Order: sequence, then structure tokens, then C-alpha cells
Amino acid sequence: MNYCSQCGESVEIGIPPGDNRERHICPACGTIHYHNPRIIAGCLPVYGDKVLLCKRAIEPRLGYWTLPAGFMENGESTEDAARRETREEACTEVQMQSLYTLTSILHVNQVQMIYLAQMPEPTFGPSEESLEVELFSEEEIPWDQLAFETIRMVLNLYFEDRKKQHFPLRHVEIDSNGFNTARVHD
Amino acid sequence: MNYCSQCGESVEIGIPPGDNRERHICPACGTIHYHNPRIIAGCLPVYGDKVLLCKRAIEPRLGYWTLPAGFMENGESTEDAARRETREEACTEVQMQSLYTLTSILHVNQVQMIYLAQMPEPTFGPSEESLEVELFSEEEIPWDQLAFETIRMVLNLYFEDRKKQHFPLRHVEIDSNGFNTARVHD
Ligand SMILES: [Zn+2]
Ligand SMILES: [Zn+2]
Repeated sequence: MNYCSQCGESVEIGIPPGDNRERHICPACGTIHYHNPRIIAGCLPVYGDKVLLCKRAIEPRLGYWTLPAGFMENGESTEDAARRETREEACTEVQMQSLYTLTSILHVNQVQMIYLAQMPEPTFGPSEESLEVELFSEEEIPWDQLAFETIRMVLNLYFEDRKKQHFPLRHVEIDSNGFNTARVHD
Repeated sequence: MNYCSQCGESVEIGIPPGDNRERHICPACGTIHYHNPRIIAGCLPVYGDKVLLCKRAIEPRLGYWTLPAGFMENGESTEDAARRETREEACTEVQMQSLYTLTSILHVNQVQMIYLAQMPEPTFGPSEESLEVELFSEEEIPWDQLAFETIRMVLNLYFEDRKKQHFPLRHVEIDSNGFNTARVHD
């Protein structure tokens, strides 16, 4: 950030009174500009013993496989966002089951929420954002062509948890050095 | 937003190619400015049969009681944020137990995450952000002096769930018309 989005003046960096962090502050209009993590919401859509993956039609990681997920928009709930992204990227309607992974990605200021979701019908298809959309059994997953390590983690957790048919919410922390083991609270 | 925070030009409103929503777009440098919901993270700190509340020292709702919670910062995890806010507002260290409520507040573009947390010691105190900090049993809660309806909801859920000693994650949706009933997934 270089300029105040309210008045257009050059912003300065400083610690506001009562705060303990550096912020972008406008010397002209006094606005303090906060920057906060953004939420990425998505689904792990399940149909029978298969999961739905999308081959990305856009950068980054064009041509690699991922779960339908994207930035939550203003005016929607986390579940709405996950459902919308799944509709937009995979052209499928899902039934939300539970929040499955909550991943804080520290070095890019993102919080990724992946919901476990059931597909009532095996109806899906490509979109502007996905070159291909397909159902994969565990053996068929294209492990060497996954777009992101967070997606690999979610899939690994899922196939592990599926053996016990128990899918507790996982808290995960990631920074530029790698993963903190997925932690489960009671 | 009136001006581009990158180059200082006046922004325009339009739908970028491949998008389906209006965004603030800079005609000079081409930057698309996205606005996304912010996360408020906090705790419901429990000590024995009591819960910890803070009397707000700052607006809004100065002088009313609330749970320790505040905006998540860049570079921290959701749990870090909840723990930090609890430290800053109530001067207490908690052990995180589980994510308890996940509330999408649609009309203000906020996602509130409240963690159930245990206090190993009844050590706490006021701060720059809290005039008083106190432990309350269910009967002692100042129900008519709570700062926010979301806090009333979390406390009501907690005392209800405590009877069964089962604290499932609740998804809640709130808009300007009021609450959608707290929903529990499986
Ligand atoms: Zn300004
Ligand atoms: Zn610009």
C-alpha cells in the first residue's frame, strides 16, 4: 500500500496510539489501514468411494488438480462461499457435511476452510476455472499432479479418517518452513 | 474506497473479465481491489463452573460485558489470534480446547470464531481494553449488560451444551434481520 484509499495522499507507516503494530496511516485524513488474513473456502466433494477434483484452468498451477475452493466474498457465509466455489469450479451441487480442515497459512495471510460435502448425484463438469472435473478413487488420485500441498494434506487426512469413518475438524498451521502436524482438538 | 492504494489514481467500479462481481478497478495501473470478510477470533475461557467476561474499555459498547475477541492479524493462526486477544483483553493464559462457534455476520462482512478454552489458573485482570475482568457462574452472568447478541448466543449455547458435556462446533449465520438458528453438522 502506497496511497490512502480514502483521500489519495501518500500513507506513512507508524504505530497508532493504543496499538502495538505498525500500520499504514494517512497523515492527511487520519485513516488507519488494517490488513487482515483472507478466507479461502472450499469443499471436499464425496460421491460413494470417490472424491471430486478439478484441473485448474487458471494460474497459478494451471493444469494441476485441486479441490474446488476460492476467496470468500463479502456478504456470504463460509458455507455459502464453499458451496458457491464448488458450483463455479465443478458445476456440482453438494450437501455440506462438516467443517473438516481449518488451515492457517501464515506466510500468505490466508485461512483455508475445507468442508466435507456429499454429492447426491454424480453430476459435474468443467467450467471457466476448470479444464476437467473428475471423480477419483483413492488409488486413482493423481498424487504427482496436485496443485497445492494443502490439497495433498486434506486428501491424505480424508483417506486416513475414512478407515474409521470419523472426520474430526483438523487445525493446521503452515508457514514458509512447512507444516505443523495437523492437530485435532478433543 | 476512492483511490488506488497502489498508484493513487481514482478507482472506478466495474466487473473485471472472467469475474461476475463489481470490484474497485484502477484505470491507471490496472489493479483490481478485492474486499473480503475479516476474521474475529476469541475465546470462551472457562474456570471450573465459571466463565470469564471482560467489561469493554473502548467503544463500541463501552462498559458492557463481552468475551475476549478481536480482529485476527496477518502472520498468525486463528488459534494464535484467539489466544493473543484473550491475553491482551483479560490478562490470562488459556489452553485451547476446541473451535466452538463459527459465525458468519453477513451485513458487516465478519466471520467470528470463538474457541472453548480452559483456564489452568484463575489468574486474570483488567487491561487497556477492559475496565474489569471477572469470572461468572451461569446465575451471575450480567445478561442485561452484554455487549453483543453474538456473545449472548455463545453463552446460551455453552450453558445448554454443558448439561450434556458435549460441545460440537456450531455454524451460525447472522444478517441485519437476525439469526439463523445455530446449526450443528453431524
Ligand atoms: Zn487519507
Ligand atoms: Zn492504480
